Amino acid sequence: MNIYKAEKLREFLQDVFVHCGMQQADAMTASNVLVAADLRGIDSHGVARLSGYIRLWESGRVNMKPKWKVVYETTSTVTIDADQGLGLTLGQEAMKLAIKKAKDCGTGWVAVKNSNHFGIAACHSMLALEHDMIGISMTNASPLVAPTHSIERMLGTNPMCFAIPAKKYNAIVVDLATAAAANGKLEIAQREGKPIPHGWVQTKDGQPSTNPHELKNEGSLLPLGSDRDHGSHKGYGLGAVVDIFSAILSGANYGPWVPPFVSFLPVLPDSPGAGIGHFFGAMRVDAFRPIADYYENIDRWIERFKAAKPEPGFERVIIPGEPESEMETERLVTGIPLNELVEKDLISLGEKFGIAW
Amino acid sequence: MNIYKAEKLREFLQDVFVHCGMQQADAMTASNVLVAADLRGIDSHGVARLSGYIRLWESGRVNMKPKWKVVYETTSTVTIDADQGLGLTLGQEAMKLAIKKAKDCGTGWVAVKNSNHFGIAACHSMLALEHDMIGISMTNASPLVAPTHSIERMLGTNPMCFAIPAKKYNAIVVDLATAAAANGKLEIAQREGKPIPHGWVQTKDGQPSTNPHELKNEGSLLPLGSDRDHGSHKGYGLGAVVDIFSAILSGANYGPWVPPFVSFLPVLPDSPGAGIGHFFGAMRVDAFRPIADYYENIDRWIERFKAAKPEPGFERVIIPGEPESEMETERLVTGIPLNELVEKDLISLGEKFGIAW
Repeated sequence: MNIYKAEKLREFLQDVFVHCGMQQADAMTASNVLVAADLRGIDSHGVARLSGYIRLWESGRVNMKPKWKVVYETTSTVTIDADQGLGLTLGQEAMKLAIKKAKDCGTGWVAVKNSNHFGIAACHSMLALEHDMIGISMTNASPLVAPTHSIERMLGTNPMCFAIPAKKYNAIVVDLATAAAANGKLEIAQREGKPIPHGWVQTKDGQPSTNPHELKNEGSLLPLGSDRDHGSHKGYGLGAVVDIFSAILSGANYGPWVPPFVSFLPVLPDSPGAGIGHFFGAMRVDAFRPIADYYENIDRWIERFKAAKPEPGFERVIIPGEPESEMETERLVTGIPLNELVEKDLISLGEKFGIAW
Repeated sequence: MNIYKAEKLREFLQDVFVHCGMQQADAMTASNVLVAADLRGIDSHGVARLSGYIRLWESGRVNMKPKWKVVYETTSTVTIDADQGLGLTLGQEAMKLAIKKAKDCGTGWVAVKNSNHFGIAACHSMLALEHDMIGISMTNASPLVAPTHSIERMLGTNPMCFAIPAKKYNAIVVDLATAAAANGKLEIAQREGKPIPHGWVQTKDGQPSTNPHELKNEGSLLPLGSDRDHGSHKGYGLGAVVDIFSAILSGANYGPWVPPFVSFLPVLPDSPGAGIGHFFGAMRVDAFRPIADYYENIDRWIERFKAAKPEPGFERVIIPGEPESEMETERLVTGIPLNELVEKDLISLGEKFGIAW
């Protein structure tokens, strides 16, 4: 594995996006969002996805020069048509609008339709933090997850993220796919040739499976909770909420109609909406109580949870988002290790477009 | 098991609440909320809890005549001090305020401090439905759940509920405790003398257990996801979000300081806030798109999910909230079966207060 500085990867990505017709400023934003995933250790959602986005553009499913616009608005809400742009950039724009609304009236809520995948959810909701706001982001995604007692892929891994500002400590960032395990974890097991735990996937007939390749056999991911006894109806319910907030409020596609991320899969006919959908929220913490009281108590929350009795063999309890922010601090210094396949993929993309690696 | 009409139970509860000093209107509200839980089949949160509330009042921890007031406000937000009142009534008041805000500016958000347990979350968020709004409700609760890799009870079962209006069909109601299994399920296993599945509780040393009495041995409930491999950090993260939204925004107690529901357990010293906390939201669906478009698509969502391929042996896929609304329809006609212990408890409460059963 070779290791690259974030800056170097960002520059390369920017050149690629610009080559594909993106404005310089948008290309910077999109590159930042992808590299932020690698910095935070979510390698599956980082630069590894670049060629996927490019293939979507080549097949005419992404507009690199979107003229996104506000199509609906109230005092605290906005709906955006993303004009088939990349969620990577549109997510940032939408979150900024949510923040603007929150400045004016305490909270702001933005639904987005006609978009594409937006990278890691945290990268958008965390924009709220420097404004002393809680940031919320979610998106629907291509169907891979079967509802409880179903064998049909009906929902994406539909992540939701809550970014909660603190003062003495790093922000709390709860960023979770509503499936038991995200696809990235299956890919790791595939590369290592290892079985996966029971409860992550099922076969196409609804049987238990530990095969990391089960999705290729028409199997499906299971919702958070894995089975009915352990609350899979809750993971299914949360995935449904993300789908509905992201797509039914905005006018995007939902359920099995969400367009696939991979360009070789066709878009289903009779689609009820436009593109994929996201949903964002921003809440000023001082819309609820004086700001100093808020920060004093959120810091005390973090201190108390850090001090919770750990399970034998563990040093201490983790605050949500802590591993990712520690990884970011580390990788900003040491650089980002790239998997050999990802590296090769990026190099060949560079060669194709005449962009130096 | 004897069976009672909802109306008869409501009247009895009302008399008890009035006997304890509640205003007639509040007593009606509190009784409605408790009986609604039984109607929806959530027997653990219904009339079975009456004597628990009364014991809290007897030990001076509940104010039956609260003078709740708005202590903080912006265009889209409100913070309420519940004056130690019952969450059963205050939850309804708070939700009404959220609805009022949403009428004015698209969405409304209400944080509540200094409250007590509010019954089933669905009963509050569902108030939004008749206003063509999505309703959101959550509350923190007495600590029973250990974070991932911890052996200390730090969070309540902290439920969150999303009520989503539909036109041709019943509303979608996603109402979930953020623990793998709520305490009520342990109580059923206790009554039946049966072991519980792995992944619901752990011993006080963090060992796996199938003992439904494990909480009495200082064990703890596990977060939704059960263990790290199956995403317990996600359940822990969601429970943390509920705790922070409900208590850090409002000024209530959080984490291990949340006052216990049972009156025989002491309140911890150095508590950082007042009472327990709730959080409510209301979003006008026509704050995001024309109302007819919304309803057309949410109905289509429900139809498509009802038609998803079921697992062999199952008739069809369940829409979140469907079993509860079917139960309600049934029990409104056939009545509510009361467990013998619950019945005895209510009868003796009636005798004590001179209220006819």
